[in-house]
Amino acid sequence: MTNDKRAVASIITIGDELLIGQTIDTNSAWMGVALNEAGVIVKRRVAVGDNWDDIWDALEKESIAVNVVLITGGLGPTADDITKPLLCKYFDGKMIVDQGALDNVIDIFTNKLGRPLIERNLKQAEVPDTCTVIPNKRGTAPGMLFRKNDCIFISMPGVPHEMKGMMSDFVIPLLKEEFLSEQIIHKTLLTAGIGESFLAELLVKFEDLLPESIKLAYLPSYGMVRLRLTTNLASKSDEIESLFGQLKSIVKDYLVIDSDISMPAAVAGLLKEKNLTISIAESCTGGYISHLLTSIAGSSQYYEGGVVSYSNDLKTALLGVPSEILITHGAVSTQTVEKMAEGIRLRTGTDIGLATSGIMGPSGGTETKPVGYVCVGVSTKQKTVTTTFQFRFDRARNIELTAVHALNFLRKNMV
Amino acid sequence: MTNDKRAVASIITIGDELLIGQTIDTNSAWMGVALNEAGVIVKRRVAVGDNWDDIWDALEKESIAVNVVLITGGLGPTADDITKPLLCKYFDGKMIVDQGALDNVIDIFTNKLGRPLIERNLKQAEVPDTCTVIPNKRGTAPGMLFRKNDCIFISMPGVPHEMKGMMSDFVIPLLKEEFLSEQIIHKTLLTAGIGESFLAELLVKFEDLLPESIKLAYLPSYGMVRLRLTTNLASKSDEIESLFGQLKSIVKDYLVIDSDISMPAAVAGLLKEKNLTISIAESCTGGYISHLLTSIAGSSQYYEGGVVSYSNDLKTALLGVPSEILITHGAVSTQTVEKMAEGIRLRTGTDIGLATSGIMGPSGGTETKPVGYVCVGVSTKQKTVTTTFQFRFDRARNIELTAVHALNFLRKNMV
Repeated sequence: MTNDKRAVASIITIGDELLIGQTIDTNSAWMGVALNEAGVIVKRRVAVGDNWDDIWDALEKESIAVNVVLITGGLGPTADDITKPLLCKYFDGKMIVDQGALDNVIDIFTNKLGRPLIERNLKQAEVPDTCTVIPNKRGTAPGMLFRKNDCIFISMPGVPHEMKGMMSDFVIPLLKEEFLSEQIIHKTLLTAGIGESFLAELLVKFEDLLPESIKLAYLPSYGMVRLRLTTNLASKSDEIESLFGQLKSIVKDYLVIDSDISMPAAVAGLLKEKNLTISIAESCTGGYISHLLTSIAGSSQYYEGGVVSYSNDLKTALLGVPSEILITHGAVSTQTVEKMAEGIRLRTGTDIGLATSGIMGPSGGTETKPVGYVCVGVSTKQKTVTTTFQFRFDRARNIELTAVHALNFLRKNMV
Repeated sequence: MTNDKRAVASIITIGDELLIGQTIDTNSAWMGVALNEAGVIVKRRVAVGDNWDDIWDALEKESIAVNVVLITGGLGPTADDITKPLLCKYFDGKMIVDQGALDNVIDIFTNKLGRPLIERNLKQAEVPDTCTVIPNKRGTAPGMLFRKNDCIFISMPGVPHEMKGMMSDFVIPLLKEEFLSEQIIHKTLLTAGIGESFLAELLVKFEDLLPESIKLAYLPSYGMVRLRLTTNLASKSDEIESLFGQLKSIVKDYLVIDSDISMPAAVAGLLKEKNLTISIAESCTGGYISHLLTSIAGSSQYYEGGVVSYSNDLKTALLGVPSEILITHGAVSTQTVEKMAEGIRLRTGTDIGLATSGIMGPSGGTETKPVGYVCVGVSTKQKTVTTTFQFRFDRARNIELTAVHALNFLRKNMV
């Protein structure tokens, strides 16, 4: 055991679906977070198709640059999954049945799924005799660990919850034991309402004085910029804390929250802290803001419910927006979102009502209210306030931006 | 111009945020789709950090295996963005100001943003003199094209809508002109209600008879499996159509739709085709199903609105679920979703009402109704039907699975 060496990893994901864009690779992001927390540096990530030569080549190339190669995908029971026979050849083994893996397959089919077991499923219990089997508690395909030329190779299924189980139960503990497990320290804060280059101007002096062992990164997305300080050295933990304090005070006018959480999580935290309840009336965001809040475990503590009033009739019937207002000012107007926010708050008996109405595109825009024009209202027992935004993007991005900015407007007007 | 050669591409994405999992790489998936449509084979995808040696190494390695290297990210105005100076050195150039890019930066700041222009922004108009500038109509950082050793290198910003604009306006047309633009043909269908291995059993004979130039892939996700036939040869277009017909008839009992669209898009298509309107009452899915449907452009044609009745009070107040039913059977019961589906349909005056109620976790489960237990109801003018599901995963996955299965249940009970 060489505990003074840091694990440096490359992640290989296998599957044509990744290259032709049929699947978005969310596994690698999850693995990146988990590995970082365990002190593992992720140096590269590679995706290759279900192609013998390309997979073989990736194994060779990646293992030169790192000491841990993590492989996901290609372990299914169907013919397009060629990873296992390839690994068997690459690591000079022959296929044998692993009793533990076999028991697991039988248990899943007979006890959990209650389905007949077919030959194809039994084959999933076969592994190269040159590997150490990693148990799969959430599926039929076992993981495999190989060692070659001072590099550890770990092959896992591509199904996200199976991969995550193996990582948490087996891979992370193993890497922590075999390598230096000094955590990589990240300190992240979220800003809104200021662009990347203007932030950078504010931070010129701060960046000049940063020691070489601490890096600052700018991560812009959807009208917000995340700032992240990073160090690989545990000895720098006090220094990074102090620098993070300086950073917060420099950007204080734009600071949403001083941790790496999303805008919905920041708002949820505030609602809980202030012991406030909320309901949401959505037109243009079509239920997305309610979805964002209810995706957070424990949301029933502050979220009561909402109405998606896509049609004008429902704005009147379910929220009590007077039809004169809809006729005079239109469904997309500050007057309408004011009544929507008040209506949802009063009809649900919550402390706060949030409302959105806008034109998400691609059609529906007019000269005075073009695509991307959005009205947001927040109603509390004390006051009802509204604002407008003009976004300039496609439907999906306009919905995303509206949700984030509506939540930020809510955050500032919570009371 | 060598129009008989196919473009084979590698995508390099640059940014620490990709490796530590702070950002999910959606760019590569979008690029994969666009490149495939243009007949470009995507061979590999690589992500590296904001690190000089790693980026340099990736440029060298990738350009050996392919004839097109597409690079995204690292072009921002801040110090952690090192791609441009690196490209300048790699392609042996010196920095010059590009007049077109400069005009664009000035136009964006003075006319579009109405903000002062700072030195840092002007620097974005600098490019290596060894590149051809690719105009960025959606942002300040210009794209760059280089040629070296029979390989084309194209560097684009990582901001998705800027990259997409450059790809559509410039990169795809260029690749089509310089290379063989024979489209790669994919035929995809969506199945639900049958596992991957059982599907494979159904398809043993079909797979045995597939010609070598046509590949079959299994893409499982959220209780559904997508089946995809692929060929690189335009001459096989009739044969792949005929094989796709056979495939559809073999899996007909499980077929959702015979194209590569999502379950929400399949349901939306059916609603439009049958000229039906829908409203949705969501408890456990918290607005997510409404979000999925309203994310599709033109959804106001069939989607009227919805209620997110997270609390019991709202199930009664907004949907008219009798409180006796909630007391006797509980909020998560077939009796409750029956009344929710009827309630939303009648109160909104739509043809169909869809309702969900369940326990998404991590807490809230009981012995008889554990985490993952879900009830779904569909109400039409003719009948109201309900069903139950038992999922076994985490909150996010349970919400996703509930939405997909509720939409599939709706699809089967639409009339």
